[in-house]
Amino acid sequence: MLDNLAVILFRPKFPENVGSAARACLNMGVNELILVDPQNFDLDKARPLATAHARHILEGARIVQTLAEAVEGFTAIYGTTARTGGWRKGIMSPSTLAGVVGERLGSGGRVGVLFGPEDKGLTNEETAVCSGLMTVPTSREGTSLNLAQAVVVVLYECFKKSLETPFVPDGPPEERPTTVPEQEALFDNLQETLLAVDFLKDDNPDYWMLPVRRFFSKINLKRNEFNLLMGVCRQIQWFVRTYGPKK
Amino acid sequence: MLDNLAVILFRPKFPENVGSAARACLNMGVNELILVDPQNFDLDKARPLATAHARHILEGARIVQTLAEAVEGFTAIYGTTARTGGWRKGIMSPSTLAGVVGERLGSGGRVGVLFGPEDKGLTNEETAVCSGLMTVPTSREGTSLNLAQAVVVVLYECFKKSLETPFVPDGPPEERPTTVPEQEALFDNLQETLLAVDFLKDDNPDYWMLPVRRFFSKINLKRNEFNLLMGVCRQIQWFVRTYGPKK
Repeated sequence: MLDNLAVILFRPKFPENVGSAARACLNMGVNELILVDPQNFDLDKARPLATAHARHILEGARIVQTLAEAVEGFTAIYGTTARTGGWRKGIMSPSTLAGVVGERLGSGGRVGVLFGPEDKGLTNEETAVCSGLMTVPTSREGTSLNLAQAVVVVLYECFKKSLETPFVPDGPPEERPTTVPEQEALFDNLQETLLAVDFLKDDNPDYWMLPVRRFFSKINLKRNEFNLLMGVCRQIQWFVRTYGPKK
Repeated sequence: MLDNLAVILFRPKFPENVGSAARACLNMGVNELILVDPQNFDLDKARPLATAHARHILEGARIVQTLAEAVEGFTAIYGTTARTGGWRKGIMSPSTLAGVVGERLGSGGRVGVLFGPEDKGLTNEETAVCSGLMTVPTSREGTSLNLAQAVVVVLYECFKKSLETPFVPDGPPEERPTTVPEQEALFDNLQETLLAVDFLKDDNPDYWMLPVRRFFSKINLKRNEFNLLMGVCRQIQWFVRTYGPKK
């Protein structure tokens, strides 16, 4: 039911939590677990928590060294965070996330939910790859959930939503959603273009790009739209090269 | 917030689960944990899972020998079960339970949620004391949740319900959506800009704008995003006027 949903654990520190997460995946109908650079990983410690039922999910977990490898092939990644201040605006609740995930899966997407390490969570660098952020509401700030507890709550919401409206694409095949690497290529191209026309300040373009990234990350960008936007960027850059001041 | 809600664990076998349950209580604003005849109980094994934050809940847990003692003083007990067949009719989902619990608490009640042992769950004898039963939906029958996972899901639903207003993420109030006239103004501006950089053909710009319009019409464009895009257009047009070929 949640066939195209995957759980991605970034540098989990405790193999027991990986085992518990595998069991939560099984419970909620998720088959794919990806571990990014797991610390102290030990299948023998993880297995009892996964139980025999979820052993295939645990043992079938893909282990990669970098986040970039992990997110390859996904059309959207949603990060989980316990920190909701500062730049982390528009953070979703688990049920809101479940709705968004449902839409993405329904339109043929492949979605990953990303969880950070137990102690530190995801840094801003890691959340940069995310189309959106989610937090599980808790009674007091600073008392975050255990990793596997957070996994089960998020998957539970997605599973619940999938019972209401099966995440099965209907109608004629739509344009496929863009992958995360494509989205990154578009951001790079947009940044270059906005720099070329002096819309972005040269001293800290990454900072000035934040609102642009935020805007695009809320859109379930399709391949044809990607082509359109890449074409616009190309044209503006051509224009600047041809007519702009020589730098 | 959930001051009059208690978690009752009936003969839990693993102290680690008791510790995790205490942490889940803390996370979701529940202060009272009751252990009925806990097996192999060992605070030293439970404490790391509770973390320092929930230590007071774990160490303050009331330990009793019988279910009858545990339920004393409560106005309603709701049992959790993974078995939904046979006599167990009218079993609630966690969100339904949360509504019921909310009503009970709202009318001054004191409510306990009862969880059975990890391996066997509650027997019919134990569920006899319950005002109602609840099960967490899972993807396949027979693959029940870990005890502490079930606790966090149930409390999460109760906590969610207890938040009087729907969960509002931190951050400033959301930007208002753009009006249709604003969207039209943006389309005009985009068209003019794309013409200026020769992206659109002069002979039939309306036609060439169709995919651009289609793209933007699927976005629930907010006022700040509108300002951002208008600014980009303005900048590109300024660039063209300043450096472009004189037409």
